[in-house]
Amino acid sequence: MKITETRKEKKIDEKENFLERKPSLKIIPLGGQEEVGRNMTVFEYDSDIAIVDMGLQFPEEDMPGIDYIVPNINYLKGKEKQVRGVIFTHGHLDHIGAAPILLKKLNYPPIIGSPLTLALVKRKMEDYEAGSATRLKTILINSIKDKIKLGKMEAEFFQVEHSIMDAVGVILKTPVITAIHMGDWTIGTRKKKNVSDENTSQEEINYAHLSQLARPTVLMLESLGATVRKSLITEDEMWDNFRKVIASASGKIIIGTFSSQVKRIKDILDYASKIGKKVAFDGYSMKMNVEVARKLGYIKTGKEVIISVNEISHYPDNKVIIVCTGAQGEINAVLNRIVTDNHRFIRIKKNDTIVFSSSIIPGNERSIQRLKDNLYRKCDNVIHSEIMDIHAGGHSNIAAIQQVVKEIKPTYILPVYANHYMLKEAEKVIREIGFPRQNIFVLDNGNIINFYSDRSPFVEKKKVDTSYVFIDGLGVGDVGQVVLRDRQMLSQDGMFVITVIIDSKTKKIIGNIQITSRGFIYVKENFDLVNATKKVVQKVIRENTSSDTSINWDFVKNNIREAVGLFLFQKTQRRPMVLPVVIEV
Amino acid sequence: MKITETRKEKKIDEKENFLERKPSLKIIPLGGQEEVGRNMTVFEYDSDIAIVDMGLQFPEEDMPGIDYIVPNINYLKGKEKQVRGVIFTHGHLDHIGAAPILLKKLNYPPIIGSPLTLALVKRKMEDYEAGSATRLKTILINSIKDKIKLGKMEAEFFQVEHSIMDAVGVILKTPVITAIHMGDWTIGTRKKKNVSDENTSQEEINYAHLSQLARPTVLMLESLGATVRKSLITEDEMWDNFRKVIASASGKIIIGTFSSQVKRIKDILDYASKIGKKVAFDGYSMKMNVEVARKLGYIKTGKEVIISVNEISHYPDNKVIIVCTGAQGEINAVLNRIVTDNHRFIRIKKNDTIVFSSSIIPGNERSIQRLKDNLYRKCDNVIHSEIMDIHAGGHSNIAAIQQVVKEIKPTYILPVYANHYMLKEAEKVIREIGFPRQNIFVLDNGNIINFYSDRSPFVEKKKVDTSYVFIDGLGVGDVGQVVLRDRQMLSQDGMFVITVIIDSKTKKIIGNIQITSRGFIYVKENFDLVNATKKVVQKVIRENTSSDTSINWDFVKNNIREAVGLFLFQKTQRRPMVLPVVIEV
Repeated sequence: MKITETRKEKKIDEKENFLERKPSLKIIPLGGQEEVGRNMTVFEYDSDIAIVDMGLQFPEEDMPGIDYIVPNINYLKGKEKQVRGVIFTHGHLDHIGAAPILLKKLNYPPIIGSPLTLALVKRKMEDYEAGSATRLKTILINSIKDKIKLGKMEAEFFQVEHSIMDAVGVILKTPVITAIHMGDWTIGTRKKKNVSDENTSQEEINYAHLSQLARPTVLMLESLGATVRKSLITEDEMWDNFRKVIASASGKIIIGTFSSQVKRIKDILDYASKIGKKVAFDGYSMKMNVEVARKLGYIKTGKEVIISVNEISHYPDNKVIIVCTGAQGEINAVLNRIVTDNHRFIRIKKNDTIVFSSSIIPGNERSIQRLKDNLYRKCDNVIHSEIMDIHAGGHSNIAAIQQVVKEIKPTYILPVYANHYMLKEAEKVIREIGFPRQNIFVLDNGNIINFYSDRSPFVEKKKVDTSYVFIDGLGVGDVGQVVLRDRQMLSQDGMFVITVIIDSKTKKIIGNIQITSRGFIYVKENFDLVNATKKVVQKVIRENTSSDTSINWDFVKNNIREAVGLFLFQKTQRRPMVLPVVIEV
Repeated sequence: MKITETRKEKKIDEKENFLERKPSLKIIPLGGQEEVGRNMTVFEYDSDIAIVDMGLQFPEEDMPGIDYIVPNINYLKGKEKQVRGVIFTHGHLDHIGAAPILLKKLNYPPIIGSPLTLALVKRKMEDYEAGSATRLKTILINSIKDKIKLGKMEAEFFQVEHSIMDAVGVILKTPVITAIHMGDWTIGTRKKKNVSDENTSQEEINYAHLSQLARPTVLMLESLGATVRKSLITEDEMWDNFRKVIASASGKIIIGTFSSQVKRIKDILDYASKIGKKVAFDGYSMKMNVEVARKLGYIKTGKEVIISVNEISHYPDNKVIIVCTGAQGEINAVLNRIVTDNHRFIRIKKNDTIVFSSSIIPGNERSIQRLKDNLYRKCDNVIHSEIMDIHAGGHSNIAAIQQVVKEIKPTYILPVYANHYMLKEAEKVIREIGFPRQNIFVLDNGNIINFYSDRSPFVEKKKVDTSYVFIDGLGVGDVGQVVLRDRQMLSQDGMFVITVIIDSKTKKIIGNIQITSRGFIYVKENFDLVNATKKVVQKVIRENTSSDTSINWDFVKNNIREAVGLFLFQKTQRRPMVLPVVIEV
């Protein structure tokens, strides 16, 4: 039925010759153009919508208490039925983390991705709401020859190099426009090097075949590497270091990494199997992802190598590898529990080896440093990227960006999926190789860019709403700027609640004024200040009330707030949040 | 009088032959051994105390509202009169920032330093408490031949390379021990390179003369470079880049840097003078430091080059350089005011050039990134360390650490002034060149290490108190862990105050229960939740009171706190701080 409708529309469309009536391909980035994370792009062609990625963003330091941020999909309100499918390029949280919330809001449109990616999306759904994964219509990408109809659009896929298996790029075609979205990508890190063990080397990928696509072609290019001039560490170089560490360790090896590093986990398992060591996994997401990967056959190593973390004491230390979460210094994750002696089965010894095999997520610098300091106190062999190349990132560098542009030869480029300043730097490095400036568009979240077959792209003046949607506990979007500002203020100098009970007849204060303060000063040690503040309150009430007129209590409360705020600031140079509670009885 | 006493003691001392009675040189780091900052070391020999540095530490992200942290000097309580002098190695805040508070607590002992350093200390004192600088007894280091008596100890000095002028290292001698403290240092960054303009090149420093000092010698070695394998950028390389940027700019140049970068400021002024540009300074600390440096003759450029920031419009854009604060993304500093269009005189144009000439202080990564994003929106030429070597740090690398150890040939080494993990890495790289492990001591804050002429050093089991002393507004040390924990909690999920008035006779609730909430949910949009919570409170009070017995209100309040806390968590998965205020009237 839907298909018939679509064909009809197309026919009509082909008959029309007016330029204005030809639908454009609209590309609308809902996230990922200003900060890193909550990656999501809407492709709209006539009455059909396709979505690429639904990622989450981790909160900034001025968003206390926020769990994460999801893309704002107000733009899609009322268009839910036009969403023909949601494509996930790969299984990292900044690409799938918002799926449980947004797919539900969109009434579960079909989702499209490669096997590992979809398995990880489903696991996320179940974690968020048990049973929700069963509501999904899934379309598996089995081969890069697959073509998937999305209304009048058609999607094809290509393999990309990235730090998780099964990552794909997307080719989205309308009858006249081809858009290529790289997802997250890198290139050349799989180049073979002269290493003894070849089991990690994979076929090298290039993107030259994409230059054969019909034009005009727009390339959406993830640009996190736009400021990286140095050459990338190849997987083999990294793995060479890794293998030496594993082979030479005289005690246990504890490897902290992202649970999404399924490929690295597989490599560790293969190597452990070869040299006769055992591997235990710890951390909820780590264990879940290993289970997912084993079910799908991405990890073939079995019970002869994998042990449970409570069995590690059954083996000599130098036969044990533990792969766990917490390399970002997260308080409740495994590494932190180990270092604070709160882990049930793992104790660090001086001759153990601890490996940080992960990059630093911006904002985590200090908690990682603290974790490192503490690990160094307990262990002589702490290995991290400052002292050895033990992590290969999944992103490109400047040379790679320039190479890919030369290979794909697009007509237009949209740098995407990075901080704004990186997108601008990407523009610069692409121009360096002669690409025309007017064919590069650095968009903001919410910009609508229209692509046509016969004229230049056009960015609409009005942006769609992409304001933050905060997730806090069960709340989706119910924490707004007011609540956040209050949290910031409370965290700076605490709060100071003044409770006053007023006799409704005499307008005099009944009993004692109560002061409840937290995070400001330690009240028990500051009786003088508290008593002086009470006098200020008494004075304000005396001066603003009389027994024979009706009182505007909001006015009195404001006066209390101001007088007490000023008094406390003079005395302490601090500005706690002053909250007067005045009750007439 | 004091001097006579000292001499007497010494005579007695020399007569004694018992090993135990010979005083050791005690070295006690009060800060700088665990985290970066609040650098301060106590040297104690018999009844004499010398102090090196009094730095501040910037707060961690889990210390909301804290302005900064100063070293804990409980150990010096009762010993104030034994402090013969406080030596400042150089004028950076992590070495002088705690001086106003600690010098006052110690009744203003004499302070010792080179001219710029002492001028900066005095300015800090005046900023903190007008008139306090006049109470200082100052001993100026005019020449590296100066010898300063500190009771039975004697101090000499040597020039070190660092990112501020007038930095010195300290040689502290007792009759039998020589201790060398490098302060913050680097080496080799002044090496000449083939550059056209030589005016920034300075005499290269080496430390080989220190090997001539009498042994046993302990070397205290600032180790921030202990994980840096790559070669250091020389001042000339950096300056070469800088000069090209300044010379080729087609619009205004705005340089964000630390106000303590007096040397770079001088270089900019000299070059501006040469090519006929004008320089305006903005930011309080920037202007103050320039004034200090000009008074002392470190900056000789005068009114022909320096203009006021409100005069920049009198000159063509390409003749104007603005040097300002705010490169760390600080909300109220100049750069942020410029980018948010809140600066009275400076507007950014697309063809202006903005230079970040500073390193990133850990913890500021995200605010810097945000500032950069915003600057890129307004300006096509934003230059920072990711895209050009535009800042040379003042710290060493691994090669420099090894070189200095070879030059100085100390008997013992204490790695200092860095994160614990860096101290441990310093130990490793020093051992790499054959230095014996047992002669390296990685101390914690508060450790007491004793040095003797005739036996091995001895670290005492007991540490002295070095717990945090937080500065918040006017308060010194009055914010403790309880207040901080409350602030953290308030910032996560806000607070929820419940005010209940009880009739003292009937024990029934009078009137409405009042809810005052901030930072939790937006109460006006959540009437249902608020009303349901009131019912929970009513139930608790009903079940825990009766009109004929006296009520333990603390018990009732605890029950309200628990019941409401649980209820709100079930409904929202958030844990606001619940504060019941129950008043009997």
